[in-house]
Amino acid sequence: MNTAANPITREDCALRDQQDPLATFRTEFALPEGLIYLDGNSLGSLPIATHKRLAKMVQEEWGQGLISSWNACDWVNSPQRVGAKIARLLGAEADEVIVADSTSINVFKLLAGALALPSAEGRNVILSERGNFPTDLYMAQGLNEWLGGRYQLKLVEAGQLAAALDRTVAVALVTQVDYRSGYVHDMAALNRQAREMGTHIVWDLSHSAGALPVALTASGAELAVGCGYKYLNGGPGAPAYLYVARSLQAAIRTPLSGWFGHAKPFDFSTDYVAAPGIARMQCGTPSVLAIGALECGIDILNRADMQQLRKKSLALSDLFWQLIESHCGEFKFACVSPRTHAQRGSQLSFAHEHAYAIMQALIDHGVVGDFRQPNLLRFGFAPLYNRYVDIWDAVMVLRDVMKNGTWQVEKYRNKQTVT
Amino acid sequence: MNTAANPITREDCALRDQQDPLATFRTEFALPEGLIYLDGNSLGSLPIATHKRLAKMVQEEWGQGLISSWNACDWVNSPQRVGAKIARLLGAEADEVIVADSTSINVFKLLAGALALPSAEGRNVILSERGNFPTDLYMAQGLNEWLGGRYQLKLVEAGQLAAALDRTVAVALVTQVDYRSGYVHDMAALNRQAREMGTHIVWDLSHSAGALPVALTASGAELAVGCGYKYLNGGPGAPAYLYVARSLQAAIRTPLSGWFGHAKPFDFSTDYVAAPGIARMQCGTPSVLAIGALECGIDILNRADMQQLRKKSLALSDLFWQLIESHCGEFKFACVSPRTHAQRGSQLSFAHEHAYAIMQALIDHGVVGDFRQPNLLRFGFAPLYNRYVDIWDAVMVLRDVMKNGTWQVEKYRNKQTVT
Repeated sequence: MNTAANPITREDCALRDQQDPLATFRTEFALPEGLIYLDGNSLGSLPIATHKRLAKMVQEEWGQGLISSWNACDWVNSPQRVGAKIARLLGAEADEVIVADSTSINVFKLLAGALALPSAEGRNVILSERGNFPTDLYMAQGLNEWLGGRYQLKLVEAGQLAAALDRTVAVALVTQVDYRSGYVHDMAALNRQAREMGTHIVWDLSHSAGALPVALTASGAELAVGCGYKYLNGGPGAPAYLYVARSLQAAIRTPLSGWFGHAKPFDFSTDYVAAPGIARMQCGTPSVLAIGALECGIDILNRADMQQLRKKSLALSDLFWQLIESHCGEFKFACVSPRTHAQRGSQLSFAHEHAYAIMQALIDHGVVGDFRQPNLLRFGFAPLYNRYVDIWDAVMVLRDVMKNGTWQVEKYRNKQTVT
Repeated sequence: MNTAANPITREDCALRDQQDPLATFRTEFALPEGLIYLDGNSLGSLPIATHKRLAKMVQEEWGQGLISSWNACDWVNSPQRVGAKIARLLGAEADEVIVADSTSINVFKLLAGALALPSAEGRNVILSERGNFPTDLYMAQGLNEWLGGRYQLKLVEAGQLAAALDRTVAVALVTQVDYRSGYVHDMAALNRQAREMGTHIVWDLSHSAGALPVALTASGAELAVGCGYKYLNGGPGAPAYLYVARSLQAAIRTPLSGWFGHAKPFDFSTDYVAAPGIARMQCGTPSVLAIGALECGIDILNRADMQQLRKKSLALSDLFWQLIESHCGEFKFACVSPRTHAQRGSQLSFAHEHAYAIMQALIDHGVVGDFRQPNLLRFGFAPLYNRYVDIWDAVMVLRDVMKNGTWQVEKYRNKQTVT
């Protein structure tokens, strides 16, 4: 029905919301009145359950239970328990995922772990994408510098990754969904290539898990990390997670060999002995309260159908793109995200020379996306709480900001942004 | 007045509580009714302010402010802000301490950082104490293994540390207060020795900070880490902190070079450039909610007089020891903690062949200390919330448990403990 003669209306969008099988999930989030939040890929929204859960953990478990809660409230197993729940989102087995530390630290663990595997012997390349999320590259650089620059950190364009995955590669570090463009790598194809070349890929799932179905086992992935505070709605700076396929768990070691990764931490023995299984990838004492908050976000996602989620995510981004074309065509926003569904994550990014100022104006007018260097307006779509009418309204606000030149005022220039 | 003829009474203890200048601090903690908690050195008690603070952070800052709170609520600087407050407890400058990651991870950062300093060149020993807290030793082992076993991890007894601090030492790792005995190292003397030998000590302050005055600058300490969940009352698995003296900040690097340690993280550049100052010791996105909880604990300590705190801590442990001698003399508890005040932390540990079962029985009867391998009953004294009458009551419960043989029942054997 959507043609120039018969364009999409806000009513059409409202109707789609009425028919949306995921619509009720929105009621589980504490969303600010009147705000259209298209930045859930940077910091996910607050699940209403989280406040109650944290209050209970603080007042009852910590306040009243004190040290006994490590066992009585299962704090000690919370990294495994929540890891197992995340595993369901990743198409992995429950004992292949654990919550620990930050994404950056986990990247270090798995890169270091992979480099110590026999498969890395005699190879001198750490392969990644030039546009990979910076902290992933920084961790690889820190690791390599620490090893005396033994490896070449080879950075290629997204399209060159497969070709560059050759027998010189000791380990590759690939983010499944690009944080700027939203481009999705073909995980199965790259894993096949890696396997043929006898090497391993560390996948960063920060911009994919919780927004699209990830199939680690089915695609032959062996190592992965991901972030808890984006689509998993775990809260600011939430703990991260990591995945090691069963096949590699006995072989992999981390140089970050803290006591929570010890086979018998409470024996207080002098020598480190790695725990069996995924537990060895832990390091220090887990951040119990933060893991509890993260669990609330995961519990919601575990009740959602990932296929429906993906379908809605694509429908939201299709709609956004379409409305931008029909209502903001004159303002020359150039979408840098893939048109093809299979290659598109749960976001759209538009290049514009005044992207920074425009995004600040948008935020001031109640539409929150974010700016990404050098010239991108980035909009993330969180199918659990974004509605079709939100998309409509957001584009209309953008249109007005452009038509009225709102973004041109002084205050919208040169501010620091935070992801 | 305390003689065999004129023994201490509970009334004497109550009187001391009345005269205690720190007494009102107890009202700032949510303490379970009827429980005597002598395990604040394992998990500190809940400050009443923490619940309110977390509720505000969750509901307002995260829920309503969403991504904007990174700047609007100063989340982005919370590691520095809370680090500066911790610095006051450590006798350090505000810009020498930062909150980050776990104690284990921070040990790794500083050990690795010290090994990359010119002073470590040509040296092959990582020195520590055999009885050091296990995770410190594990981190040193993991690091060294990762470096191809280039170093000898030399473990000596506490009394041998000074003599072993020679020109072969690339870095030393010393915990100021021993987690079992509570023995306090002479920080100034060991720092002098390290300086004379041209090497560095990484101090672990986990069992000292918040319980006794630490004087990092005055004692010439250069590197230190510490835990947030013991005497700092930051909550289970609270973020840890680290200290780098200004004199070393420009030279030190960490292999864990994540984006929050970058000079300009939000430029999203491909190459890592270490931030100036202590900020470079950060790695991934900080755990904002957990740092907020930690800050509540620190804020209380920042209002307490550390000299008064130390005085009360020693008075509590003197009293406990004295009462054990006068009321439990027949049960052969052998105190392994130093009699000399200058060498005693804020805890006492008693060896007993049935230590484990006795501690379980004590806990069941409302007195919480903990068991430490192989045969220690450990009691920690938190001067902010432990009273003199608590000490009296705890010893009386212990006496009854021993007199009645309560500990001998089957259920008090073989359980796992958690610190």
